[in-house]
Amino acid sequence: MFLRERIAAIVDSRRFQQLIIGVIVVNAVALGCETSPALVAEYGGLLDALDHVALTIFVVELAARLYAHRLGFFRDPWNCFDLVVVGISLLPAAGPLSVVRSLRILRALRLVAMVPSMRRVVTALVKSIPGLLSLSGLLMLLLYVGGVVAINLFRPSGDARFEDLGSTILTLFQITTGDSWSEVMRDLMVAQPLAWIFFVVYLLVGTFTMLNLFIAVVCSAMESEMPDRPSSDQLVLAELQALRDEVRTLSADRLRPVGSADRGSTN
Amino acid sequence: MFLRERIAAIVDSRRFQQLIIGVIVVNAVALGCETSPALVAEYGGLLDALDHVALTIFVVELAARLYAHRLGFFRDPWNCFDLVVVGISLLPAAGPLSVVRSLRILRALRLVAMVPSMRRVVTALVKSIPGLLSLSGLLMLLLYVGGVVAINLFRPSGDARFEDLGSTILTLFQITTGDSWSEVMRDLMVAQPLAWIFFVVYLLVGTFTMLNLFIAVVCSAMESEMPDRPSSDQLVLAELQALRDEVRTLSADRLRPVGSADRGSTN
Amino acid sequence: MFLRERIAAIVDSRRFQQLIIGVIVVNAVALGCETSPALVAEYGGLLDALDHVALTIFVVELAARLYAHRLGFFRDPWNCFDLVVVGISLLPAAGPLSVVRSLRILRALRLVAMVPSMRRVVTALVKSIPGLLSLSGLLMLLLYVGGVVAINLFRPSGDARFEDLGSTILTLFQITTGDSWSEVMRDLMVAQPLAWIFFVVYLLVGTFTMLNLFIAVVCSAMESEMPDRPSSDQLVLAELQALRDEVRTLSADRLRPVGSADRGSTN
Amino acid sequence: MFLRERIAAIVDSRRFQQLIIGVIVVNAVALGCETSPALVAEYGGLLDALDHVALTIFVVELAARLYAHRLGFFRDPWNCFDLVVVGISLLPAAGPLSVVRSLRILRALRLVAMVPSMRRVVTALVKSIPGLLSLSGLLMLLLYVGGVVAINLFRPSGDARFEDLGSTILTLFQITTGDSWSEVMRDLMVAQPLAWIFFVVYLLVGTFTMLNLFIAVVCSAMESEMPDRPSSDQLVLAELQALRDEVRTLSADRLRPVGSADRGSTN
Repeated sequence: MFLRERIAAIVDSRRFQQLIIGVIVVNAVALGCETSPALVAEYGGLLDALDHVALTIFVVELAARLYAHRLGFFRDPWNCFDLVVVGISLLPAAGPLSVVRSLRILRALRLVAMVPSMRRVVTALVKSIPGLLSLSGLLMLLLYVGGVVAINLFRPSGDARFEDLGSTILTLFQITTGDSWSEVMRDLMVAQPLAWIFFVVYLLVGTFTMLNLFIAVVCSAMESEMPDRPSSDQLVLAELQALRDEVRTLSADRLRPVGSADRGSTN
Repeated sequence: MFLRERIAAIVDSRRFQQLIIGVIVVNAVALGCETSPALVAEYGGLLDALDHVALTIFVVELAARLYAHRLGFFRDPWNCFDLVVVGISLLPAAGPLSVVRSLRILRALRLVAMVPSMRRVVTALVKSIPGLLSLSGLLMLLLYVGGVVAINLFRPSGDARFEDLGSTILTLFQITTGDSWSEVMRDLMVAQPLAWIFFVVYLLVGTFTMLNLFIAVVCSAMESEMPDRPSSDQLVLAELQALRDEVRTLSADRLRPVGSADRGSTN
Repeated sequence: MFLRERIAAIVDSRRFQQLIIGVIVVNAVALGCETSPALVAEYGGLLDALDHVALTIFVVELAARLYAHRLGFFRDPWNCFDLVVVGISLLPAAGPLSVVRSLRILRALRLVAMVPSMRRVVTALVKSIPGLLSLSGLLMLLLYVGGVVAINLFRPSGDARFEDLGSTILTLFQITTGDSWSEVMRDLMVAQPLAWIFFVVYLLVGTFTMLNLFIAVVCSAMESEMPDRPSSDQLVLAELQALRDEVRTLSADRLRPVGSADRGSTN
Repeated sequence: MFLRERIAAIVDSRRFQQLIIGVIVVNAVALGCETSPALVAEYGGLLDALDHVALTIFVVELAARLYAHRLGFFRDPWNCFDLVVVGISLLPAAGPLSVVRSLRILRALRLVAMVPSMRRVVTALVKSIPGLLSLSGLLMLLLYVGGVVAINLFRPSGDARFEDLGSTILTLFQITTGDSWSEVMRDLMVAQPLAWIFFVVYLLVGTFTMLNLFIAVVCSAMESEMPDRPSSDQLVLAELQALRDEVRTLSADRLRPVGSADRGSTN
């Protein structure tokens, strides 16, 4: 119990966190260097060692924080993020999971959790997600429905971009982002001259929905970034209410015979 | 009459609507599976049967709601949407109307009408359309006028993108969305070195108008999403008016000889 | 003088304006039809006649309005616009000015001046231009400075997009709109591997300036579209001032010996 | 000392600044002309002379301003900008620094410092930068982490766009701007059919962050462009406070026996 408190004090100290930030940065640089064959050829052993040391430090750090804060550790979503990101690196990176090795660099994202200003920015980003769920759902429905329509219309043309439902939905996603949509359309219009109808309608509906998704983000962001105005209005209202109470007291006095009590004593 | 009420109760019940949502989802998935030749080869009969069952359920459901609500049914635009979407599937899908078969998936859009949060989003989108009519009209006029100018200027170059008025307007639409406009321009500038003048002017005018269309959407969206501020102002004004009335009463009292009525009784 | 008033009455009448709108639309459709060789082959004479009749009507109309309103005609910028657009069609369309024939369709833009809702939209667009002059000047300066830097850096590579100052500035304009900028950069990076520095810097600076141009438009548009809020604040302030005056009168009364005048008369 | 004041008066005079603006414009035009081999062949000597004269004038001007304002000169960041831009031209432009010759045109940017309206615009742009640091840092972190993941995933495919960490990060920057991202993805999907997962995730995360960066700019710009609203609220609050004070005085009077002092004197 005494040990737990001392560990908590160490783990939550500013100096310890700066140390961890340092380890994260060194580890990220090392993983970046590992992408260069020339550097790996010369310093491969060192880079690998650095990665292992960093991973060990992270595991010890997380274990210490878990021990110090017990279940309270899981209450902070940033801790869970740390746990997942470090956990990924502990998976066996051989065989079908070899892609996991590429994900070691995700540990660098821990930097976000450690630097308060970045943490605030990301928290704000994440908070704006729930308000976007309905519109995201709508966009996905548009992608699915548009995909089934498009594959039925355009598969006969033999275009590889419309050969199965997955490719078709990916192509529609590409069109929604506005990238090279005209090229896709022109290729199809050789065989199906009316293909432009689908593209123009889909582009208008999709972009219009995206635009509104955008606006939803802007609005929610503004509401959270400009909270001073309503509170100022609330101040005005509170002030008014107080004022009215005083005037009401005055009025109430007035309705009683003025000075009915003190008049008697002066006369 | 008694039957009508019982049917209305069933049709409007939460459980019945969840059932219909289930049928819509199953139907959408089935139509998605039908796009895969492999799945059609193996389960073609089942998928077709599923589609027919779903269509039958939709027809019965709409008939029941039409019977239950009579003409009131048509007052809700979402009902009309349902009717059109289901009606499309009842058209003969052979011959020139074979494209109609591809539109069966539009039934999946009924999901929007059934899920309240999506319904709200789409209603908001649709409501912002009337405010865009003038600007959309302006954009169409720009496309038409720009199209006639462009075809007269660029048809001599023999570019397929400017061979008739339809293609030209489609190309201008592509330019307005900013997709590969430089490629179109550079192809033309080989033969007509001054073509850039048209493109730069059209891009500036078109994008500027689009930008303002965008702003119109943002503004109308914001006004509807932030209705609290004016009402708060209204609260303040109402509060002020009430306060002023009380002060006025006080003032009026003051102007009368103070206590002229009660003074008499106390003296 | 009497004739002038009668003509003014005719020219400003609703019916006359609807007639002109009709002529504009018919003329625009005719000019659109003239772009189709098939239609010209069959109805060429009719289309040409329609165009001449429409032009004659416009000339007569403008002459009548000029006669009716005299110099007041030039006070409305829309009238000047009409005059220019119709005047263009009267220029000789042969020889070096053959491009003028393509501009006859600009007459269709008179529609904007005739339909009130469009007129309002365009007036709003035009009004937002002065606020953009500083930023547009800045963008032009960026294009010029960037162009001179780019041509000095990239002409040695022999790329046709950087062969003279005009082409280079056009290429930079393309990059600012974000269209295929990576293609331009990758072509250059074959010979000059450091070309990316210029592109990334120019893209960041240019896009950031464009973004702020955009914001300037949004802000000016919002200020003009949401004029209700300040006026509501003004209402509150006016109400408060009035209230304060009344209270001040009350206070002033209070400071005088209460009822000093009327007391005397009652005692 | 007397000389210093006279020089300060000259240097800060309107006429002198207009002269410098003139020199800047002439110099910019001359440097533009120098990009044309034809013009250099004919007027090369003149253009070079113009450039040298302009540079001499700038050096003299800056020396004079430095002498006149002494250390106060460095307090205005625009002066430092002038110093850097003119200083660049004094560097030896031979050998490895030959690129410096291309940067002489940056002197034209001094125009921004001299024209008040442009100066204001750029000051506003620069002021909005600090608020963007966290988000820019986040974007850079995303580029770095995404780059390391992408190079590990896609280098085996042998695509030149993913051959080293630098190219990979540049490619991701291209994807974030939305330019031809689908082309990059489709090229990779030939060898790695699952490459789309990385692209869709990166595009969503990157664009979403960019969008929020954008919103941060908009919000900060709006706050600075619409400062009237809060002040109006402050006016209301101040007005209310004053009103309340008066009412409170009235109330306080009321609590004292009404007219306890003056009553005595009238009786």
